[in-house]
Amino acid sequence: MDEHLLIQKFFSNIGSAYLAEHNVRTSVGDDASVISPKSNKQFINSIDTSIENVHFLSSMSPQDIAYRSCAVALSDLAACGAKPSWYSIALTFPLLDEDWIMNFSHGLSEFSDEFKIPLIGGDTTKGPLSVTVQVMGEVDKGKAILRSDAKVDQSIFISGTIGDAYLGLKELKTSNKPNINTSAYLRPKAQIDLGLQLIDIATAAIDISDGLLQDIDLICQSSGVGAEIYLGQIPTSIEDKSLDLINSGDDYQICFTASKDKHENIKEISEKLAIPLTLIGKTTYSKELILYDESHNEMELGSGYKHF
Amino acid sequence: MDEHLLIQKFFSNIGSAYLAEHNVRTSVGDDASVISPKSNKQFINSIDTSIENVHFLSSMSPQDIAYRSCAVALSDLAACGAKPSWYSIALTFPLLDEDWIMNFSHGLSEFSDEFKIPLIGGDTTKGPLSVTVQVMGEVDKGKAILRSDAKVDQSIFISGTIGDAYLGLKELKTSNKPNINTSAYLRPKAQIDLGLQLIDIATAAIDISDGLLQDIDLICQSSGVGAEIYLGQIPTSIEDKSLDLINSGDDYQICFTASKDKHENIKEISEKLAIPLTLIGKTTYSKELILYDESHNEMELGSGYKHF
Repeated sequence: MDEHLLIQKFFSNIGSAYLAEHNVRTSVGDDASVISPKSNKQFINSIDTSIENVHFLSSMSPQDIAYRSCAVALSDLAACGAKPSWYSIALTFPLLDEDWIMNFSHGLSEFSDEFKIPLIGGDTTKGPLSVTVQVMGEVDKGKAILRSDAKVDQSIFISGTIGDAYLGLKELKTSNKPNINTSAYLRPKAQIDLGLQLIDIATAAIDISDGLLQDIDLICQSSGVGAEIYLGQIPTSIEDKSLDLINSGDDYQICFTASKDKHENIKEISEKLAIPLTLIGKTTYSKELILYDESHNEMELGSGYKHF
Repeated sequence: MDEHLLIQKFFSNIGSAYLAEHNVRTSVGDDASVISPKSNKQFINSIDTSIENVHFLSSMSPQDIAYRSCAVALSDLAACGAKPSWYSIALTFPLLDEDWIMNFSHGLSEFSDEFKIPLIGGDTTKGPLSVTVQVMGEVDKGKAILRSDAKVDQSIFISGTIGDAYLGLKELKTSNKPNINTSAYLRPKAQIDLGLQLIDIATAAIDISDGLLQDIDLICQSSGVGAEIYLGQIPTSIEDKSLDLINSGDDYQICFTASKDKHENIKEISEKLAIPLTLIGKTTYSKELILYDESHNEMELGSGYKHF
């Protein structure tokens, strides 16, 4: 099958119901896609690659691989407070297995339907399995939540619980019949609704992909502040708050900073979306990231996820 | 080295001189990039993956790998008549070799400087070497040249010569000291200037990546027309116009259709840009693609590049 037929057959109508509302004029099937920008909006662009046995397991279903690869890319938009507009995908696979591709495209459709965005283009190539997803979103002008705008003495919040993907992945690697819920790993939730609510509330935000402490440190570096984090306050599903668990990454929860006068708003957002938003620390004048254990002793820091 | 440092060190300033003119507000280093759209413009988006030993040779320099991967992605914008705005890159490599990455980033800088566009973001991952490049460009509203607007009885033109990349690749694979110019393969030229000139002249266009005949056939299918192509008129650097040569792909020349009353304009564009634009056939009412040899006999067609 040539690439053109492959794309026609499996990728030509994914999320096409949402093309018009996002001003996409020409999508899958031409050299490139044509999009009309809306005035008073800014575009937010992100790209992420997921690689077999690094970012997903070979044993996962093609649907889960597709969904997960898209969700982790979209998560970057959530952290900016963006509304998703559309996405494109560069899929590399070693051999043409039509059933596999069909199931993969079902995962894309689920993703498109959940976030109401179209797939507008892409590329397919032969090689070791990997999925690169480019997502585009929009924000009102000047409203993007960046990493760089945290100020000293602001509160640090985290959404949801930390470490669930790590526990899920461990279970998937060691058990054929997982006893715990593995959806935090298989189907991470891009926190788009939360990001949208955090506009004008959060001063800086990041999605937790590499590890909570490492990612908080990126906010600190970008903003020129330090942070104090209280281990005991970090929300986890199990009691043992080991550094491995806390800093395992893959959470795709949103960590954000906010001034203290926003605590009431944050409580309201948490209730409205039914997402726990937990105060875990504060920014400081020093440039250091310090983690305190439950007895308020300074802890030795782990290094988070190393890419290379 | 963690990903953040890697990006800071090698990728944070590529083409940054061109950020402002393309309205890019936040680029490499945040979760995502922020871009302000211009009014009366449409965006053109494309994504392309280049894989080691499929789309480039292991033996190529990191500069050439970077430049080539970007140029073939940008070529899709040329075929739409778009002006490039910016690009992002998802780079996967097996191990951290700082010299290699440094040289790769030099290839990106060359590309940025040639087309005056910034690198605005990306992702780095560990795995088998591949480069996915997403490019964004702009056109005046409604002016994008698509594949789908060719009409019956229009002329078919091709830019440059066909088959040079094939000859270059053959030489690179068989000789340590190439006797012929291999730049058509190593450094394909994205025909951006030509694409811009073809707005309101060409009715449909495509860049030749998979093979001249296969790519013309995509215009035919999208536009609902057929085509007659005259082998003798296809411009090549060597006399032997074999089907292997003609349909080898990797040319990144622009094939376009135009009505006959545009021939004079096309001649002027050719002279102005010093790019040969050769009439090689015409669109027809039949839905077939027919290739005629130099004695005007119908030829058996090859199948072009098969991706899988």
